[in-house]
Amino acid sequence: MTGTEVLTGRVADRNGPYLADRLLELGVELSHITLCGDRPADIEAQLRFLADQDLDLIITSGGLGPTADDMTVEVVARFCGRELVLDPGLEATIGDIVTRLMARFPGVDAEAVLAANRKQALIPAGAVILDPVGTAPGVVVEGHPTVVVLPGPPRELQPMWQAAVATDAVQAAIAGRTQYRQETVRMFGLPESGLAETLRDAEGTVPGFDRLEITTCLRRGELEIVTRFEPQDEAAYTALLEALRDRHAREIFSTDGALIDDQIAELLRGRRIATAESCTAGLLAARLTERPGSSAYVAGGVVAYANAAKTDLLGVDATLIDAHGAVSEPVAEAMARGALSRFGADTAIAITGVAGPGGGTEGKPVGTVCFSVALADGEPVTRTTTLPGNRSDVRERSTTVAMHLLRRALTGHG
Amino acid sequence: MTGTEVLTGRVADRNGPYLADRLLELGVELSHITLCGDRPADIEAQLRFLADQDLDLIITSGGLGPTADDMTVEVVARFCGRELVLDPGLEATIGDIVTRLMARFPGVDAEAVLAANRKQALIPAGAVILDPVGTAPGVVVEGHPTVVVLPGPPRELQPMWQAAVATDAVQAAIAGRTQYRQETVRMFGLPESGLAETLRDAEGTVPGFDRLEITTCLRRGELEIVTRFEPQDEAAYTALLEALRDRHAREIFSTDGALIDDQIAELLRGRRIATAESCTAGLLAARLTERPGSSAYVAGGVVAYANAAKTDLLGVDATLIDAHGAVSEPVAEAMARGALSRFGADTAIAITGVAGPGGGTEGKPVGTVCFSVALADGEPVTRTTTLPGNRSDVRERSTTVAMHLLRRALTGHG
Repeated sequence: MTGTEVLTGRVADRNGPYLADRLLELGVELSHITLCGDRPADIEAQLRFLADQDLDLIITSGGLGPTADDMTVEVVARFCGRELVLDPGLEATIGDIVTRLMARFPGVDAEAVLAANRKQALIPAGAVILDPVGTAPGVVVEGHPTVVVLPGPPRELQPMWQAAVATDAVQAAIAGRTQYRQETVRMFGLPESGLAETLRDAEGTVPGFDRLEITTCLRRGELEIVTRFEPQDEAAYTALLEALRDRHAREIFSTDGALIDDQIAELLRGRRIATAESCTAGLLAARLTERPGSSAYVAGGVVAYANAAKTDLLGVDATLIDAHGAVSEPVAEAMARGALSRFGADTAIAITGVAGPGGGTEGKPVGTVCFSVALADGEPVTRTTTLPGNRSDVRERSTTVAMHLLRRALTGHG
Repeated sequence: MTGTEVLTGRVADRNGPYLADRLLELGVELSHITLCGDRPADIEAQLRFLADQDLDLIITSGGLGPTADDMTVEVVARFCGRELVLDPGLEATIGDIVTRLMARFPGVDAEAVLAANRKQALIPAGAVILDPVGTAPGVVVEGHPTVVVLPGPPRELQPMWQAAVATDAVQAAIAGRTQYRQETVRMFGLPESGLAETLRDAEGTVPGFDRLEITTCLRRGELEIVTRFEPQDEAAYTALLEALRDRHAREIFSTDGALIDDQIAELLRGRRIATAESCTAGLLAARLTERPGSSAYVAGGVVAYANAAKTDLLGVDATLIDAHGAVSEPVAEAMARGALSRFGADTAIAITGVAGPGGGTEGKPVGTVCFSVALADGEPVTRTTTLPGNRSDVRERSTTVAMHLLRRALTGHG
């Protein structure tokens, strides 16, 4: 992974996680992810370190642009002991792409841009070319280890990785892998230490426990337990799953890999939902519409940030706000009812809270968030929680709590 | 950086970017970021690689939890040649924290949890202890290089890094650094290749160009040019900035580090804004309210996902939608006007587009997005653009385009 912009924290690395997921699916063990700036010596040091770890495959991303600070291909060629050669076919391909791209920017000197992009047609001799999705081609250099060179922008990297996997060179490099199975259990409402205790006990009671590779992680307020094992150890996993179910039946919401978002999408099928958000200001509506096809069940929402918006757009009684405060269960319930009627929906959810850093009081400290689900065909469900973290954490976690409350209301476990 | 959950792509690494920023501010050059799973051999291999790079400081994050898969402290102790010893004071501190935490989870056996957390009181002999923010303490082990061990959760790592920097050991390790200056220019509406051309020309015309460390990066549809230089090379930077301004005056929107979000927050001071969103479904409202204090100028918004919501909540004429389609400039303008009046705002912005993957037509392919800004005290500004990428990219980029359109409308350069 190269790119000074990633190293300096200005861009979050999305390629590491993407490639990690794909490798896991292929059953390829990922040992190391390394990032460095666009400095040849650092790139080379990392390649050498990785090669020393007795790996079959190295994947680089980034540093393939037309600017002079991009030099991954050059460094990889040297590292693999290959000459850098101009590929005329590739040069023509890049020329076509750039010419088309430039048509959108009439002010730019196309000739000069073409000259800059020509550098991208230089590849290590004998390497397999991966056709560009943007303007930058990738390459696969076969060897010990085989090196796959991909561009930095995730939109380009992702399809080009699929192309790379299809090459004989990559298939040969990953031929020796062990096939693992991986199962995920997701919980909500349990602290990590509580799970640690259960796992410690399971160590004594689950036969074959030590052949399960278990990792636990707290994410967006949910606990995720991922277990990897070889197919013959399935019985051990089944026993572990039973041990988890024995203790945490209420907290486990998924054992088949489904995210809460998947479950909500399923539960909302045939329904019509509207949102009423104050502190989260649209994050929940945005989350509900992340997946294609959500227009079948999302009517819309109101971001009622100001109190006037709560009364004018959701019909919340102003005296209710005066009596209980904007962050209160009666106001959350009124917001949900308002959303239900204004959007002609059958399902509505409201969030009102103190995201901070200001606005907290003794009775309602920063992190206090009230939620209410209103159903045309069921009882309302209202809850207040205090969420940890900063403004962004509180807003983010509020959407997760809302999703789980919605799940409980829609499955009748409110 | 350790943590199997980060390596397997299930959690995005937020600590690398955070620490990178802090080190940059301190003038400390960051050479390498490495990630591996919670496997002792891999952690040790990375520590050895980093130590071989002749660095002054290694920072690890993650692997400090109570579960058995967390073993960073143990590995670091061995790597630094220190014994692992139990610190009684630290044990008491952790005990207090865990006891308080457990009060929130009445069902959990506090004694068992305490036993698990006791492992976190084991530290390398002679190390400086960093008090826990969660339950996990950090340590600083002085040496060549000095190693700082921090927990994985960003909420814990960030304050503990501040404590680590204040220690004599870290101050000694970073004493020899060169002080750099760093300046950032941000542009919108220019392709990366166009900038590459300008920079290539600047190489010939800007005296001292080769002493500037320039990195460019495309992010959320904006181009960011970051230049690092030693203080005596300020004249070279000034000349570079002039060269950029000569060519790209219209595209440069920031030369002082300000983000478009900072500029919009400033421009909205004393105003009152409302949003009307279709394809972005709340992302713009959420972005406008990311910063504390935004309630002073954000009234709220409507997520008008369904056409009925556009007519019912924003007063868009249904015949307008029939005549032009929901994704059209007339509908965007009507949505903005509706938001202006329904929220009693003086500034409103509407977004309606085809985020995909379905819904595209020949005339309005996926990525087609219409924007409209309505001002109580100025002319409306309406634009249609075609944005690249997948559903998530189109939605995300739409908020950026909206921010820039808003900027132009509010500065009178619509």
